[in-house]
Amino acid sequence: MDLKKYLEKKRIQVEEGLDSFMLKEEGLLAEHIKSMRYSLFAGGKRIRPVLCIATSEALHVDPSSYLGLAVGLECIHTYSLIHDDLPAMDNDDLRRGMPTNHKIFGEAEAILAGDGLLTYAFDLFSSPRITGSLSPDERLRIIHIIAGAVGSLGMVGGQALDIESEGKAISFETLQYIHSCKTGALITASVQTGAVIGKADDAQFASLTDYGKQIGLAFQIVDDLLNIEGTTEQLGKAVGSDAELDKATYPAFFGVEKTRAMAKEAVNAAIDCLKDFDEQAQPLRDLAEYIYYRKR
Amino acid sequence: MDLKKYLEKKRIQVEEGLDSFMLKEEGLLAEHIKSMRYSLFAGGKRIRPVLCIATSEALHVDPSSYLGLAVGLECIHTYSLIHDDLPAMDNDDLRRGMPTNHKIFGEAEAILAGDGLLTYAFDLFSSPRITGSLSPDERLRIIHIIAGAVGSLGMVGGQALDIESEGKAISFETLQYIHSCKTGALITASVQTGAVIGKADDAQFASLTDYGKQIGLAFQIVDDLLNIEGTTEQLGKAVGSDAELDKATYPAFFGVEKTRAMAKEAVNAAIDCLKDFDEQAQPLRDLAEYIYYRKR
Repeated sequence: MDLKKYLEKKRIQVEEGLDSFMLKEEGLLAEHIKSMRYSLFAGGKRIRPVLCIATSEALHVDPSSYLGLAVGLECIHTYSLIHDDLPAMDNDDLRRGMPTNHKIFGEAEAILAGDGLLTYAFDLFSSPRITGSLSPDERLRIIHIIAGAVGSLGMVGGQALDIESEGKAISFETLQYIHSCKTGALITASVQTGAVIGKADDAQFASLTDYGKQIGLAFQIVDDLLNIEGTTEQLGKAVGSDAELDKATYPAFFGVEKTRAMAKEAVNAAIDCLKDFDEQAQPLRDLAEYIYYRKR
Repeated sequence: MDLKKYLEKKRIQVEEGLDSFMLKEEGLLAEHIKSMRYSLFAGGKRIRPVLCIATSEALHVDPSSYLGLAVGLECIHTYSLIHDDLPAMDNDDLRRGMPTNHKIFGEAEAILAGDGLLTYAFDLFSSPRITGSLSPDERLRIIHIIAGAVGSLGMVGGQALDIESEGKAISFETLQYIHSCKTGALITASVQTGAVIGKADDAQFASLTDYGKQIGLAFQIVDDLLNIEGTTEQLGKAVGSDAELDKATYPAFFGVEKTRAMAKEAVNAAIDCLKDFDEQAQPLRDLAEYIYYRKR
């Protein structure tokens, strides 16, 4: 299969979904909605919603009725980027080559745009606009999976620990914990959401969860590598910005070569998790490779 | 009935629930959880969870199995206070007589404490730890009510518009919109959550929704009054801080006397919404009066 074409097709589908599900820039709230839309449509590969869609397809279920759930995952991802970029956090001026939300709309609006996007995701997850054959129990299960993954024991906690660890010597175990929470948790939850949509049985759900964890790990390791190897143009943010903040990274612990090998190992482990799936899971396998070879 | 005793009993019940449902201060995330707990336990009347509980009791349903839902409402309220107090927003150093979250834990942690509390609410709302006889459909309905009330078309949007309106001449209609979103929406949603728990029929749900809107309005009008009339000690924050920021308020539009009359009118309208309810709704009626007479 041609992953590039697949990704492009799904990206367009997700962006159409984002546009149709997201609030319109009108009325008294036009500026607030403009700010959310600015960051939602500032590019990006839409990896999380695509993972959700590809996972349900791997289980031979057409996810088109559930586009709103995939869109919600992207809303959460975008909120996390807006808040991470804030002056009080990572203080980044550029994201994907464009000024960050607070550079355009100011800090107050950036905080609120993030809050609005996070909340809107849960609005979508629970919305009667999402129809299809998922039972209310399955819908609740999805909400609980995602809320757990992106909250204090997941993404938010990972970011808190990352901020607290700046300039401190931390153990490799702490670094792993930060990585798995900050990046891995939402990626895994995206796969799990697709697994619930696809009516995965327990064994399938467990395999897909492991797949999600391994690609989440690979994703963060490659991010660390790109941050020291990449150019500003490729990465869309100032290179070395993490190093400047004295952040612990995989290359800092293991050097570039070993780090690259560890990323490849995680990709192989991810693909191995899919050994009992048929050719419908090929996009998931190719996505794991893609995460390894991506340039930004 | 003795409302003071009722409120005290319910407040203790809610605080026990907060303590048991909230994450414990331990492990790698101890500091992050400490920050959330600091603001969760910084006092407060717990009006929103108490409204939820009192509403289901008004419908003759014991809400004790649903304490986690009431707790989630307070998590959302606390998140909104933490973010509103941030330097980029209202820049308040004091809240309920104590230093605001960011004064103790720093801005980054305060943003994340808010994010964590908001997300944790949805974790609770969807949690299998909440048992009882609510159907998954009713659970989803509650999540959708709350997400709608506190998102961009509700609380977050109200705050965004309030910040945008600073120092600008705004119409009374815009002020009303800001009030109903910023304060009214979560209060109304708290009542509606209790109404779903209490298996309200459509007519009861509509009456209780109107009750919620009227007390929400009264609450915000009284807040405006307290902010110009109160002392720092009573209010626990710097008096006149809204006026300093050139914010539109009811007294600025109508003067103190007419504003007070408007608050009383809203309270009477709220009580009138309960005319078809029996003596089990007395706490709701008394709560409406309490909102009018409260000193902070």
